[in-house]
Amino acid sequence: MKKRYFIYISYKGTAYHGWQCQPNGISVQEVLIKTLSAILRTDINLVGAGRTDAGVHAKCMVAHFDYEGEKIDTSKFLLHLNSFLPPDIAVYKIVEVRSTAHARFDAVSRRYEYHVIFHKDVFKRELATRLFAELDFETMNKASALLCHYEDFGSFCKLHTDVKTNICHIDFAFWKQVEDEWVFTIQADRFLRNMVRAIVGTLFEVGKGKMSLAEFCSVIEAGNRCKAGMSAPAEGLYLVDIQYPDDIFKLS
Amino acid sequence: MKKRYFIYISYKGTAYHGWQCQPNGISVQEVLIKTLSAILRTDINLVGAGRTDAGVHAKCMVAHFDYEGEKIDTSKFLLHLNSFLPPDIAVYKIVEVRSTAHARFDAVSRRYEYHVIFHKDVFKRELATRLFAELDFETMNKASALLCHYEDFGSFCKLHTDVKTNICHIDFAFWKQVEDEWVFTIQADRFLRNMVRAIVGTLFEVGKGKMSLAEFCSVIEAGNRCKAGMSAPAEGLYLVDIQYPDDIFKLS
Repeated sequence: MKKRYFIYISYKGTAYHGWQCQPNGISVQEVLIKTLSAILRTDINLVGAGRTDAGVHAKCMVAHFDYEGEKIDTSKFLLHLNSFLPPDIAVYKIVEVRSTAHARFDAVSRRYEYHVIFHKDVFKRELATRLFAELDFETMNKASALLCHYEDFGSFCKLHTDVKTNICHIDFAFWKQVEDEWVFTIQADRFLRNMVRAIVGTLFEVGKGKMSLAEFCSVIEAGNRCKAGMSAPAEGLYLVDIQYPDDIFKLS
Repeated sequence: MKKRYFIYISYKGTAYHGWQCQPNGISVQEVLIKTLSAILRTDINLVGAGRTDAGVHAKCMVAHFDYEGEKIDTSKFLLHLNSFLPPDIAVYKIVEVRSTAHARFDAVSRRYEYHVIFHKDVFKRELATRLFAELDFETMNKASALLCHYEDFGSFCKLHTDVKTNICHIDFAFWKQVEDEWVFTIQADRFLRNMVRAIVGTLFEVGKGKMSLAEFCSVIEAGNRCKAGMSAPAEGLYLVDIQYPDDIFKLS
């Protein structure tokens, strides 16, 4: 009988053209599909919870696939799968879910982190964005808190995408110092394409004193991507968590 | 007038054939010498506090060089130097020292760390050693403490080296869990070639239950490299600190 599985994946995105399969370059999804298909000896289709852009990392991406063969011995399967995957992609959990569960449509929240450093760190190359300007994180945190008062984030959405709505509900968004890094954490029910990097880039403008809090609000209210700041570089961004309702894990 | 400077360097060793200049491949010392010579427009000779093997990292390596030109503006010089150095080598401090100070001979202690992980971590690739066997760290810490009772470490020294003595004074040596890593820290006045990796490899044997504490002591007492365990892989090893007496920094 066909069974559906969720896999929980982490990857260093530097070498990939993002999560999603595409003709121009190698993607994380493509590597996983090929490896899963080889190990399970059948064509596997993998549906991700979302996309990440080229160079963006994931501490937690979730995807589902269906498999008709015998029940998967999860711990053996994980060892086997990880030994075939390249060193920058790891699957750390696999769990059977209801046959109707959907990695993308059933996700109730997604959380991202953006990591910033202010010095040359040889061990964090490609793993954080290095900035040279000083930033006023106190003001940036005031701006971050304001994000929760809005729902329409068209200003932070990549132009010409075909999503039906720009409405997102942000649970929280804040900057916090963690050792020698500053980390921005943001959670919402959904994110628009490029949204986190556009928000972070605009918060950098606030932190440099080039944009006031009132101007920050105007940018959001304008609903126009051209008003916002530049996209922050991909290397600082991590998808870190995706939440689902409990009932999809309860098998009848 | 000729002035002597200490520079404090960090590097990710993966891409280098160790610290020391050599004909077979690119070394950290060679990159630094070429970059310093280009920036200061004169031939610079750089003397390191010690050597690290191929693939070994440094959070802190110290080296000295002499320069006859005008006084170096240290903060400008660091920015300039780091922008010319590759992303896996950084100089984070430069300080003028007494003209007789010597990075190697004046060092009074050196500290190393060895980082171990037990799962596939896409962000720690090349930055920690992944082990599959479970280890008994309690017993390994008993063995580590025993190291401080010995002075002759010929058992942990690479064969056919031309050092005059195998005597080292170990200040401390212990394993500690740090988040999802286990980290071995060891400090001594000096280390023999390959010594930390040989000690760690032998401690792995103890941790796997293949060598008792009594056998561990016999290995040290034998003074014979063949009795000890394999060298632990380079990727887990970091040179983390080098201490000097205060007086070499006091300029007359």
